[in-house]
Amino acid sequence: MDIISIIEKKKNKEELTKEEIEYFVDNYTNDSIPDYQMSSLLMAIVLNGMSEEETFNLTEAMMNSGDVLDLSIFNGLAVDKHSTGGIGDKTTIIIGPILASLGCKVAKISGRGLGITGGTADKLESIKGYNISITKDQFLKQVEDIGISLSYNIGNLAPADKKIYALRDVTGTVDSIPLIASSIMSKKLALGADAIILDVKVGKGAFMKDIEEARKLANLMIKIGKRFNRKVKAILTNMDIPLGYNIGNKIEVMECINVLEGNGETNLTALSVALASNLLNMVKEIPLEECEKEVINSINSGKAIEKFKELVSAQGGDYESIFENKNKLFTIKSTKSGYINDINSELVGLASLKIKVGRETKDDPIDYD
Amino acid sequence: MDIISIIEKKKNKEELTKEEIEYFVDNYTNDSIPDYQMSSLLMAIVLNGMSEEETFNLTEAMMNSGDVLDLSIFNGLAVDKHSTGGIGDKTTIIIGPILASLGCKVAKISGRGLGITGGTADKLESIKGYNISITKDQFLKQVEDIGISLSYNIGNLAPADKKIYALRDVTGTVDSIPLIASSIMSKKLALGADAIILDVKVGKGAFMKDIEEARKLANLMIKIGKRFNRKVKAILTNMDIPLGYNIGNKIEVMECINVLEGNGETNLTALSVALASNLLNMVKEIPLEECEKEVINSINSGKAIEKFKELVSAQGGDYESIFENKNKLFTIKSTKSGYINDINSELVGLASLKIKVGRETKDDPIDYD
Repeated sequence: MDIISIIEKKKNKEELTKEEIEYFVDNYTNDSIPDYQMSSLLMAIVLNGMSEEETFNLTEAMMNSGDVLDLSIFNGLAVDKHSTGGIGDKTTIIIGPILASLGCKVAKISGRGLGITGGTADKLESIKGYNISITKDQFLKQVEDIGISLSYNIGNLAPADKKIYALRDVTGTVDSIPLIASSIMSKKLALGADAIILDVKVGKGAFMKDIEEARKLANLMIKIGKRFNRKVKAILTNMDIPLGYNIGNKIEVMECINVLEGNGETNLTALSVALASNLLNMVKEIPLEECEKEVINSINSGKAIEKFKELVSAQGGDYESIFENKNKLFTIKSTKSGYINDINSELVGLASLKIKVGRETKDDPIDYD
Repeated sequence: MDIISIIEKKKNKEELTKEEIEYFVDNYTNDSIPDYQMSSLLMAIVLNGMSEEETFNLTEAMMNSGDVLDLSIFNGLAVDKHSTGGIGDKTTIIIGPILASLGCKVAKISGRGLGITGGTADKLESIKGYNISITKDQFLKQVEDIGISLSYNIGNLAPADKKIYALRDVTGTVDSIPLIASSIMSKKLALGADAIILDVKVGKGAFMKDIEEARKLANLMIKIGKRFNRKVKAILTNMDIPLGYNIGNKIEVMECINVLEGNGETNLTALSVALASNLLNMVKEIPLEECEKEVINSINSGKAIEKFKELVSAQGGDYESIFENKNKLFTIKSTKSGYINDINSELVGLASLKIKVGRETKDDPIDYD
């Protein structure tokens, strides 16, 4: 087997075998295949596509390229969530505590932000003392003890995906549904949750601008999940306008607290309830309406916000610090009266990037306040 | 302008502008664009094609990436020939002296062989003392004085093509008609001849297996030539069986001498006469039948072989050395009687490679005897 023959096959629209897919994933990950051959293959995949079988095999090969967590100790209660990324998207910090308060095991690993899309890890780090980089053992013990950990970089999950994604980013080979689906699902499968909810964003502020493409992506990820015996559901959500009112790390945490306390912005609250209810529905196998009631009850009873405080404390964070600089916030009033008809998510994201809410390059510092 | 946007455009089947093509050719040549981005772009070109305008611009950008020879001193008599490569193809060494004997200016730069296809430079080097690496000034003076030089590596011609070709070779991006046509023509245009004959090989022993593809390639190269005010003709020739009887550097030179002396193998002689006549036809603008007569007369009168001896001597070669080891050659007789119906060119080429007629890698030594 050799990489040039594999490139030629894909170029000629032939289906790659499981062995060929494993060959290029393994050998690219261990640096035996150079970037220039991989990028040629990736462009051939972008343009000629991949069958479902090829996508399953690519997902599996990338999943197996690093650590695979075993969450079977949680007896089918381990839940996970993925968002394809949107401006103001902060639902992980909301649904995590809700689900943990309802008996689910939320072993959640989140990324840092890059570009206009924020990262949950950055938002959590805006809480004074919150340690996102705990060990795998601490992570699993905390999930066992209090039902939730929201952390960063636990284990060496799907390193093949990490390396391939970095290459796709600089070679114009990002926009391929099989490549996106296998990238997301390889990480989710390596993480080992039993039930996964996928929040696929569509619109101006999202990677997917078109609803039909978003639907294809969602369906493919659900099929991948099924193939590997995971329960997977997807929700397509609008990203033409930002989610919620707040954009910026610490003020997003504040907004999460508003939702957890029952007085959050309507759209953000509705999406959070939908995501949490659907996950609960997969795990507990009770009707969706029942799940919705349980989720709303978790908020109204105060259990959700209590669980969030427990989480912050368990990870070394100072809950009160979140509100320390609240008096620094100020309001800019419009000089005209009227209604806001539209907000361009992408521009809001770019603006927030300029004031160091996010990173333009991987090593940029962030201003949390 | 940036390379990722250019890749995205070609991926989305949009036409690249002249400026964009110059941008990626120049910046790849000066190492500003890394291999992995270039190979992604090349695969997008292979799969989505290039318009004629794009192909013209690519050819021009590659031509302008290095030295461009000025052969205008030869008053429209400078001729050149390109073969897409075949087993036993030795016509350059035959038609060069014929054309020079008829007043053409043969300023011919030939390559070394790689893989199963031989190179004219290697064949010439099998002549004791023949110096293929003369200076540009020596090269041009010799063409002026005796009408011909067959040399190697004069000037830094189309370095962009050299670098891009090396990358295509290892990234499965060789088989693209616009890329092949622009690669060949950028070198031919940089060399500066007024009339160019293209020998496009088709069949088992050639890169082009299919006559329709070969015809497309030939037509595109002719169009490129027209665009840059060169006279270009193409001949499609069969490469299912090897050309002539001899394969191997020195014995190919011997076979060339047979043709030049008027007793060569029929197919090889016919092709040589056709190539030379068509070039003469372009340069002298007299009817093709007249040109054929002149070519045959050059052979029959002994002028052709005399010009070859003059060439060998001018480049420091020892003509008599060609026949020195002739007694080492022996015949293997078949134990059965019958007719040879077919000869697989590719296998003959591979066999000759094994006995060091050619190189498997760039730095392999060659056995000339």
